[in-house]
Amino acid sequence: MNDMNPKIKETITAIQSFDPALGARVQARLDDQAIPRGALGRLQALGKQVALIQNTVRPQIRTKKVFTFAGDHGIVEEGVSAFPQAVTREMVKNFIRGGAGINVLARHGGAEVIVVDIGVNADPDEFDGVEPCKVGRGTKNFTRGPAMGREEALASLATGIGLIEKYGDDLDLVGTGDMGIGNTTPSSAIAAVLCDRPVAEVTGRGTGIGDTALQHKVAVIEKGIACNRPDVSDPIDVLAKVGGFEIGGIAGLILAAAAWRIPVVIDGLISTAGALIAHSLAPQVSHYMIAGHRSVEVGHRVMLDRIGLSPLLDLDLRLGEGTGAVLAFHIVEAGVKVLNEVLTFTEAGVTEGEDQKAVR
Amino acid sequence: MNDMNPKIKETITAIQSFDPALGARVQARLDDQAIPRGALGRLQALGKQVALIQNTVRPQIRTKKVFTFAGDHGIVEEGVSAFPQAVTREMVKNFIRGGAGINVLARHGGAEVIVVDIGVNADPDEFDGVEPCKVGRGTKNFTRGPAMGREEALASLATGIGLIEKYGDDLDLVGTGDMGIGNTTPSSAIAAVLCDRPVAEVTGRGTGIGDTALQHKVAVIEKGIACNRPDVSDPIDVLAKVGGFEIGGIAGLILAAAAWRIPVVIDGLISTAGALIAHSLAPQVSHYMIAGHRSVEVGHRVMLDRIGLSPLLDLDLRLGEGTGAVLAFHIVEAGVKVLNEVLTFTEAGVTEGEDQKAVR
Repeated sequence: MNDMNPKIKETITAIQSFDPALGARVQARLDDQAIPRGALGRLQALGKQVALIQNTVRPQIRTKKVFTFAGDHGIVEEGVSAFPQAVTREMVKNFIRGGAGINVLARHGGAEVIVVDIGVNADPDEFDGVEPCKVGRGTKNFTRGPAMGREEALASLATGIGLIEKYGDDLDLVGTGDMGIGNTTPSSAIAAVLCDRPVAEVTGRGTGIGDTALQHKVAVIEKGIACNRPDVSDPIDVLAKVGGFEIGGIAGLILAAAAWRIPVVIDGLISTAGALIAHSLAPQVSHYMIAGHRSVEVGHRVMLDRIGLSPLLDLDLRLGEGTGAVLAFHIVEAGVKVLNEVLTFTEAGVTEGEDQKAVR
Repeated sequence: MNDMNPKIKETITAIQSFDPALGARVQARLDDQAIPRGALGRLQALGKQVALIQNTVRPQIRTKKVFTFAGDHGIVEEGVSAFPQAVTREMVKNFIRGGAGINVLARHGGAEVIVVDIGVNADPDEFDGVEPCKVGRGTKNFTRGPAMGREEALASLATGIGLIEKYGDDLDLVGTGDMGIGNTTPSSAIAAVLCDRPVAEVTGRGTGIGDTALQHKVAVIEKGIACNRPDVSDPIDVLAKVGGFEIGGIAGLILAAAAWRIPVVIDGLISTAGALIAHSLAPQVSHYMIAGHRSVEVGHRVMLDRIGLSPLLDLDLRLGEGTGAVLAFHIVEAGVKVLNEVLTFTEAGVTEGEDQKAVR
């Protein structure tokens, strides 16, 4: 990985560990709040995580954005999706119109959607109001060679980093999202390679293929891995050979969010493939990640386990776009408000219980 | 149950079934949306449920309230809680001050907290800004006789109904909540009796008791059930003998919400004990209920299964107050917005997939 460009290297180097003294101060506040110890469970853990990420006892979440990376995939030639490739372009237009799931849920959560054209098979001029960051017009069919060149893989990562450089000064919470017909196929390929699991164990129905098509999809991924022999010790190689532009963009976004000390909420299968690339490059990035939800897709759980994340929501979602991430924003913010606003026993004038007294 | 007062009888009679033609219309809209079929999972199911409850294709959620019923419990004499009884009164004052978990999460979710003094062991004059509905100053110790008289059980239910009569005209989403030191004990007793399960299987640590105290709590509940012999076919009898005022109030609130066609989000163990009383009186009420979250308390799952509810959130919460219910409001509203705002394939100009075409 000696060919990594300086921006990527600097970003990874900039990811800091947390201040243990701050962690102790935050925990002391949580333990003093006028509730049975730990009774707000994961909300309290989230408040503490965001405090450690923002490096303050009083974390704040004001500005929230979800980045939806759109890219196309040569692998759709192999008949792995229930939808034609043109739908990627059409959905980007739907995002601009504001009528897609991600628009609805981002509005509901008070977050802005940043749509990123990182690899749609369409003319850049077709889209108004998206981030124009095209690395290519779709990847290549990875059963016949690598999905992209190594330079393109690095450019995808750099694109994600560039977006945090552009928006990071006023950004308290980041979500990841994706759009790309066929993109569960490279995501499952990445899961199989980086988690060392049989393809069939990490491959699902994507947008809704039937049993025969699912068997075919597994065979396609197996063929792609056999043909390309991605180097499991080199995440950039894995991304280039069986990945996708949006997956690389998401990986770069996550690394940069961590470097900028911004908590980043991960969506479903595709986003988590990006997260796994980021984690393979820099394991310490996982402390900055929050898994928004558990997708219906079977490979998702395997990757979350590998990174060490437990999802906040489990609502049978399998849309992508960032929907599960942005829906979880509300929970993350709740955790921050619990930390900041729930009064202590003393402040509230409430008598302590046995468990509180026992530790004094 | 021939002695039920007319208000309770009328409320139960007023609970209507859903319009199947409306259900088909809503489902058709959901199936037409420009996403893979069913890809927004439980959000779509929630949108449909609220549409059926409100009896419209375009449901709306504007006004949201969580009702936190506070009551005391004579059973605390037996040493079943880690906190002294005075904490119920102190926490009611904390609710009024706005510094408790329920205040923080209700503000976050744009909901109002209605605190109901249905049975706090305190002078009514002590509280400003609560609904003064005291049925008694705490229940009696149910190891020595019934927790309350049958008339008090009926009055508790009527109190919950009265609150919907008072607020129901401008109310789109209701949450249930509780405060009462010792109230996991009657809740587990109700679970054991109405779900016909051994007490030890439905009894947890409440605010945080240790192993020995937990064994003692189980023995106390077993003694209370043996002493009172509640009639499993008569939910009012169960409520009177081993229940609590706030549990009865919650049961009445739920029945009335259903009668008024208002969706009602159920919080954790204590609220679900109330929901189980309501469900035992009128099984059709379950269609109007949404389980906000899964509590850490072991009896919760047993009761949810009995009613047939699957919780939206699972965040290791065990605080009560309505916190899990009000946190889930955001998810319910997301479901309604998905139904109303996600465009169809035609509206969005997106090509349909195989699964959509297959059903035409």
